[in-house]
Amino acid sequence: MTTMANATQSSPLHGFLAPNSIAIVGASADPTKRGYKAMVGLIKDGYAGTIYPINPKVDRVLGVKAYRSLADIPGTADLALICTPAASVPGLLVECGKKGVKGAVVLASGFRETGRPDGIKLEQEMLAAAHQSGVRVIGPNTSGMFNLHKKVNLLALNNVKAGDIGLISQSGNMLLALVLEAERNGHVGFSTYAGPGNQADIGFNDYLRYLGEDPHTRVATLYVEGFRDGRRFLDAAREITALKPVVVYKSGSTEAGQRAASSHTGALAGSYAMTVDVLRQVGVSVVQHSDEILPVAEGLGLLQKARGKRVAVVADGGGQATIASDRLAEAGLELAELSETTRRRLGEILFPQASLVNPVDVAGSSDANPALLADCLEIVAADDDVDSIFLVGMFGGYYTRFAEDLLGGEMRGAEAMIELARRSDKPLIVYSLYAPVNPPALRRLHEAGLPVYSSIEHAVRVLAALGERGIYLAACTGQKAVPTVVPERAAQLVFADAQAAGRDLFEYEAKNLLRTHGVAVPEELLAGSAEDLASIAARFGDQPLAMKVVSKDILHKSDAGGVKLNVRGEAGMRVAFDEIMAASRAYDSQAVIKGVLLTPMARKGVEVIIGVIRDPIFGPVLMFGLGGIFVEILEDVAFRAIPLSPHDASSMLEQIKSRKILAGVRGEAAVDKAALVDLLLKVSSLVEAYPELIELDLNPVIARPDGYAVVDARIIVSRKPLAAKEACR
Amino acid sequence: MTTMANATQSSPLHGFLAPNSIAIVGASADPTKRGYKAMVGLIKDGYAGTIYPINPKVDRVLGVKAYRSLADIPGTADLALICTPAASVPGLLVECGKKGVKGAVVLASGFRETGRPDGIKLEQEMLAAAHQSGVRVIGPNTSGMFNLHKKVNLLALNNVKAGDIGLISQSGNMLLALVLEAERNGHVGFSTYAGPGNQADIGFNDYLRYLGEDPHTRVATLYVEGFRDGRRFLDAAREITALKPVVVYKSGSTEAGQRAASSHTGALAGSYAMTVDVLRQVGVSVVQHSDEILPVAEGLGLLQKARGKRVAVVADGGGQATIASDRLAEAGLELAELSETTRRRLGEILFPQASLVNPVDVAGSSDANPALLADCLEIVAADDDVDSIFLVGMFGGYYTRFAEDLLGGEMRGAEAMIELARRSDKPLIVYSLYAPVNPPALRRLHEAGLPVYSSIEHAVRVLAALGERGIYLAACTGQKAVPTVVPERAAQLVFADAQAAGRDLFEYEAKNLLRTHGVAVPEELLAGSAEDLASIAARFGDQPLAMKVVSKDILHKSDAGGVKLNVRGEAGMRVAFDEIMAASRAYDSQAVIKGVLLTPMARKGVEVIIGVIRDPIFGPVLMFGLGGIFVEILEDVAFRAIPLSPHDASSMLEQIKSRKILAGVRGEAAVDKAALVDLLLKVSSLVEAYPELIELDLNPVIARPDGYAVVDARIIVSRKPLAAKEACR
Repeated sequence: MTTMANATQSSPLHGFLAPNSIAIVGASADPTKRGYKAMVGLIKDGYAGTIYPINPKVDRVLGVKAYRSLADIPGTADLALICTPAASVPGLLVECGKKGVKGAVVLASGFRETGRPDGIKLEQEMLAAAHQSGVRVIGPNTSGMFNLHKKVNLLALNNVKAGDIGLISQSGNMLLALVLEAERNGHVGFSTYAGPGNQADIGFNDYLRYLGEDPHTRVATLYVEGFRDGRRFLDAAREITALKPVVVYKSGSTEAGQRAASSHTGALAGSYAMTVDVLRQVGVSVVQHSDEILPVAEGLGLLQKARGKRVAVVADGGGQATIASDRLAEAGLELAELSETTRRRLGEILFPQASLVNPVDVAGSSDANPALLADCLEIVAADDDVDSIFLVGMFGGYYTRFAEDLLGGEMRGAEAMIELARRSDKPLIVYSLYAPVNPPALRRLHEAGLPVYSSIEHAVRVLAALGERGIYLAACTGQKAVPTVVPERAAQLVFADAQAAGRDLFEYEAKNLLRTHGVAVPEELLAGSAEDLASIAARFGDQPLAMKVVSKDILHKSDAGGVKLNVRGEAGMRVAFDEIMAASRAYDSQAVIKGVLLTPMARKGVEVIIGVIRDPIFGPVLMFGLGGIFVEILEDVAFRAIPLSPHDASSMLEQIKSRKILAGVRGEAAVDKAALVDLLLKVSSLVEAYPELIELDLNPVIARPDGYAVVDARIIVSRKPLAAKEACR
Repeated sequence: MTTMANATQSSPLHGFLAPNSIAIVGASADPTKRGYKAMVGLIKDGYAGTIYPINPKVDRVLGVKAYRSLADIPGTADLALICTPAASVPGLLVECGKKGVKGAVVLASGFRETGRPDGIKLEQEMLAAAHQSGVRVIGPNTSGMFNLHKKVNLLALNNVKAGDIGLISQSGNMLLALVLEAERNGHVGFSTYAGPGNQADIGFNDYLRYLGEDPHTRVATLYVEGFRDGRRFLDAAREITALKPVVVYKSGSTEAGQRAASSHTGALAGSYAMTVDVLRQVGVSVVQHSDEILPVAEGLGLLQKARGKRVAVVADGGGQATIASDRLAEAGLELAELSETTRRRLGEILFPQASLVNPVDVAGSSDANPALLADCLEIVAADDDVDSIFLVGMFGGYYTRFAEDLLGGEMRGAEAMIELARRSDKPLIVYSLYAPVNPPALRRLHEAGLPVYSSIEHAVRVLAALGERGIYLAACTGQKAVPTVVPERAAQLVFADAQAAGRDLFEYEAKNLLRTHGVAVPEELLAGSAEDLASIAARFGDQPLAMKVVSKDILHKSDAGGVKLNVRGEAGMRVAFDEIMAASRAYDSQAVIKGVLLTPMARKGVEVIIGVIRDPIFGPVLMFGLGGIFVEILEDVAFRAIPLSPHDASSMLEQIKSRKILAGVRGEAAVDKAALVDLLLKVSSLVEAYPELIELDLNPVIARPDGYAVVDARIIVSRKPLAAKEACR
């Protein structure tokens, strides 16, 4: 296990997540109590710090001198484990504060998670006591914590191995499941664990910063049911993912799942797709199946990253070569195209029936000499078009499968692979069908820090995570998000006016705002009365025009007969104007009508949609997708937290499944992607300048080979004046 | 392990897959040779039949009397294992025939799979020898076979346990991987294994029939790289899935994967999506990840089926309840809506903080009494709206996690679950995070035939497979496919005419054919010259019409200016007619133009597409999907092998992801699904009547709330006369 260079430790959590003294409030000799288990865990694992059992009724707990109350302990304790009922917690935190305790683990439930007013009130009281006394709180309603490198095992888990996976899990069962899986795996271990529980005080962002700075943690792994402050988590993650891999499993991926989560911890669960997108935006490795958490954490911890997504597969069996190819393609990876040199060099050492095209199938060449596989790996690793290497088959089992004297060759092969992994910056992932029985050659690989998987599916998830991380680091290092524009005074007045009137922006106001900040919006002219039409006709000439009624009272303009398309010439405009006004008045006789807006018809192109919402968890988020059924039925959209970097914007265009349509189908030319990226960035840059803007909807934008046209724009205005800061959340 | 009632054994494979005597051609004392390994496997496992080692150079092999040649053995052998090189095989098969050997396992490679002419020729020679001598062949290029209930272990695998999973794998590595996985799992075993290799003689359909009849096999499990005769496989599968579960993993799910498969066994690989659809059509349980093969086979073998897809989840931890809900929804399963009675009864035994809504979270209620979980399962099992039951959490680990004296409660709980499973027809699936360490309560469940999973993902795949199988059996038992119509003489003449002219059917001919067989096609009239327009105008009145040029030489009618839409009245028709003729002549002055087709414009609706292709593997297959981008970009289509049953047809409409659009979006009414089903069945019924029809394309069909309109129809005609039988393949 490698220890990372010690980073500057700015997180206040170090003081109590790596404590030198611990008070156990509610220490007990009753084996069913947490106050007993924690004592046992500390003593059995040989905790080197001081333990202060707190119990007013006994002198000693498990042979350790006990104290009647916190006030009685000599000096201070870095950490207090509070095992007593919920009602006692606020008072105990005050006592902790008086003794200089830095952090408290509050196990009790009965707080906000109950959803009941008394529980919510008790959590507020607890939090007030914590703030007032300067004590940080893990929980309440937490499964506890451990720091195995400090031999602090407050959960008294058996057989949990110290290692370099830092773990934060909002489910105690998930912690147990991962610990048991690690036990079976035998090769991975954990550094620090904490259960954030209700996140009343310490949230995922704080834990992540701690793990980022913890020298014993090489990979931070989080099981999240709900973030409380997603925006701060994104900020923390952006910093930490630059240093080490961060793996997140977010539960509640489906509507059904979300229901279960909200009944569990009461944490707000945003849209799953949005959550995944904004996490990936800041370099988080999101895993989508719970049984991939540990394999991906192990692989990323050991190998960190790959340069890209081009994988070279070397297999000693065609069947599994095919499965590997299938799974690689599904995971968005590519089979590297091997150079002629590579193929020639492989051909020199392999049987004639071998397949030299990726996936390389040695077709029996290694049956009598398993070390030959290492030679193949060496050759493909030297190919410039290869980013990572995947050995697939039965390496490690040759000596059981074929002949016992092959063990020597397997061990030589293992050493050569270890040597190759040391020299090369290309990660080597081994899948072996013999991994479940852990034969000597695979044990050797493990010892040397090369991960070996017993599932092709898991191995491929690791390769994908390595490639995604490498690409993220290369693309996003040094990339800056667009700065917020300076708000225009005139636009601020428009918002103020709308807010005063309790209305949203008129379409032409929204478009003017966009124009003000450099968005190309086709010219539009408002005819307040029929008298304005002559000059408008002069301006637009014989172009076909769209005409739309302008009224805050008419939301569904088409339904009201308030829209006319392909209108030409002044005479046509007059007829259309009168018809629109008459129809709109008939539709709603009370409607205040500002006039009719005229604009040239947009030329044909691809309809896209750009939206902005202010998510309660992640703050302002931009959405992009193709219009119509793509967004409504297929929900084929991409999200990014605002502000966007140029990479964020361009990656949205590549992420949607319907991207082929942007590239041109049925012989049509591709749309101007650079113009769309520019549009996304302009929208991103103006949202934060206008806190009253709570929703924005450009639908449709017509994307064309030579630019775009914003055909409709809608801006929803908050009904009450907001402080700028609040609006950003 | 339960043995199934002995079915009638019609498969000729029983005679040699359960052999009473075995000749080992190439038996050897060299431990690296297959002829040695097979001898060791038979002797070590205690094979009770007679072994005849064949080796001209020695008197005994491993102490067993050897023979110089097959001709020298006394009497016959049921099975011959041929370990000698490819060139010797045809001669050896002739020798086998003379001695009355029923089947031969041919290990050698160097046949068709090489792709080389000499290999292909050798395989043909081998096959001719086999046919001539009446010997059936497993392979060539096979990994071998075993029948563990007969103690025939020709692969000499260590630690492979006899059980009820029958396995056919086209990859030897996959066999090994599954055997090693079973060893780690410890609870499952195998009956018969065979590697079909090149399937020169015996194909997957034959093996499947054998496994279907084998009394030791409760579930047939197939790893398939390519079928050779997919149509016969479908026929076999339709019969066998009615008796026992059939699990298929088909490799080559992606383009990259397909490339690897074709370089491996040379078997043709059809479109993966199509393969999955037609396999499911006949009740096969298709798994899409290789690490799901064994869990699904185990679960289906033990539990067979569920009534439907409504799952009740009982969990002792909210985190995993959420994960289970997520995965259930993703797998197309539903969280059963629990009745008021069920919820009341649960409420009576659970803590107040428990969630009584599915997923049921006992929230600590079972911490001191794990047997309570069995009571919860009992209660949800009694709910009529529950089809299967899923226990999620840490059952089996209470005694390690909480207190040792809980072991008694766990064992009582296990007994109650076993008793419940015996009484109830609702399958019970257990996921436990303690499954990897196999504690006593879980061991007990296993012994009693209840599967326990260590992965939520795998458990959910099993629940899905059980539900799909139950629904298939209920829906398809007794359902008959539509019979082929009797071909119309007139239509046969049209095909003959087209074939003679080397052309496809004209659109109006295709539509006439459809009309002939009861498909509702809007009336169309052909104007051979402008003189016909008067009578056509009289017929259609003032309806808006579509007009299209008719010429075998003009494929892209729109490009040629050969299409006019929304034409009204006789005068308009005349103008349009002249324009179409002029434009078409200008487009291709050599084109033979039959005239212009006139038809009323189709009213608005949902565009769907219906296609028929003759797949080289599976024969005629029908495709259904929504038109335009749905089929072209999203490939959102469903396939069924022809002929279809009514269930097949209606299930296509439910399968496509865009089904919401058929149900009506944006307030539009749902389309007439019954009419579409009828159309699918009519198309299915006519394809086989016309063997010259090699492709059919109805694109678009406009589906409406009150029926449908076939707007365009295209029928491709085979260029050479086909025998009817050939056309069916």
